[in-house]
Amino acid sequence: MDEKFSDAEILRSWHINARPWIKAIADGGIESRVLVTNKAILDAVLNIKPRNVLDIGCGEGWLAAKLSEAGVNVFGIDAIPALIEKAQQIKGATFSVCAYEYLSSYEFNMRFDCLICNFSLIGEKSTENAVAAAGKLLEPGGRFIIQTLHPIAACGALPYRDGWREGSWAGFSEDFSRPAPWYFRTMETWKKLFSENGLELITITEPVHPKTSNPASIIFDLMNGEGGR
Amino acid sequence: MDEKFSDAEILRSWHINARPWIKAIADGGIESRVLVTNKAILDAVLNIKPRNVLDIGCGEGWLAAKLSEAGVNVFGIDAIPALIEKAQQIKGATFSVCAYEYLSSYEFNMRFDCLICNFSLIGEKSTENAVAAAGKLLEPGGRFIIQTLHPIAACGALPYRDGWREGSWAGFSEDFSRPAPWYFRTMETWKKLFSENGLELITITEPVHPKTSNPASIIFDLMNGEGGR
Repeated sequence: MDEKFSDAEILRSWHINARPWIKAIADGGIESRVLVTNKAILDAVLNIKPRNVLDIGCGEGWLAAKLSEAGVNVFGIDAIPALIEKAQQIKGATFSVCAYEYLSSYEFNMRFDCLICNFSLIGEKSTENAVAAAGKLLEPGGRFIIQTLHPIAACGALPYRDGWREGSWAGFSEDFSRPAPWYFRTMETWKKLFSENGLELITITEPVHPKTSNPASIIFDLMNGEGGR
Repeated sequence: MDEKFSDAEILRSWHINARPWIKAIADGGIESRVLVTNKAILDAVLNIKPRNVLDIGCGEGWLAAKLSEAGVNVFGIDAIPALIEKAQQIKGATFSVCAYEYLSSYEFNMRFDCLICNFSLIGEKSTENAVAAAGKLLEPGGRFIIQTLHPIAACGALPYRDGWREGSWAGFSEDFSRPAPWYFRTMETWKKLFSENGLELITITEPVHPKTSNPASIIFDLMNGEGGR
């Protein structure tokens, strides 16, 4: 595999960009998030009225903070220590450094009724690891809410097939460097990944960006089904 | 509702274009069908090994003929008499004129283990009628295979939201006229329609056109679930 296109490179990028990222989130500097996708993921999660949420790839913790304010117990994990350090300043939620490959062996001392991945499934094997861990982390009937890049908006002019794509910080400040690559998945492949891991697709939500009238993201609401059929 | 954008207008268009359509199919004149989508729907249907199939919107009957040759019992219905007349020349399959709004009250004297709609869910209410009839037409656990325009390929530059769209016969012969309008649905809306009618989404298939590398269609494989939750 090309070194440049790998899950390891995603982590290297985030190690470098953790600090400008924390600033961008704090400043409301990411327009699509402020206008569309932040509210969309909050609505999707609160709609199912969870009690105990695991925020996988929680970053600097803004979503965990919002959910905690809404009375939800939140545990956040992320592979990047600098982001978790920042998140740990949030009161009322718990955070820990954990890479996705260790998710299924991490001792959480509980099962959750809701998992969240908010724009945090961007790698290849790392995504598969996170989805595969869901059955062990969730109560039976628990929900897994994933917000990610929408194949429509994200495919662009490239062929519509799974594969690594170049990253970009276009629209971000000059403090960002070495953009993380990301692994494009078709709708077909996402659905297959869920089915293979016993997750039933309950709803698809496509928050539309008010400026472009195109989907700003896609949200999959999944239910932990009959245990990995 | 604008008269031009209506389920009734779709039927008027097909009444006019039945004859050139029969010729275009016989001549292999629709490239995306010949290259991609004909094989895709056949594979999807034969993959579930059905015994008794209802082909909804069967047109002039090419798919029914192929399935019949493969040993499947096929009943085909279509709202356009000229198309059913042509289909009735096929040996081994049964055909009848029936509009979608009468599907749920049509006396088939049996339940099917597979329903098919191959590019035949193009209207608004007519589509909702066909999907709503599935629970009554299918055995419990029976499958509903829908091939339709893919939101990615079909949305174009227009806003990504449900609504009527202009039709076009671009790429077809001059024998075609008065193109049928069609009702665009987002992925979100398709999934919701299925869930509301007790149909569980088993797989999504996205046959890619070899020339454009974009999806030529989308195929939903649905299962008749717990009866309309």
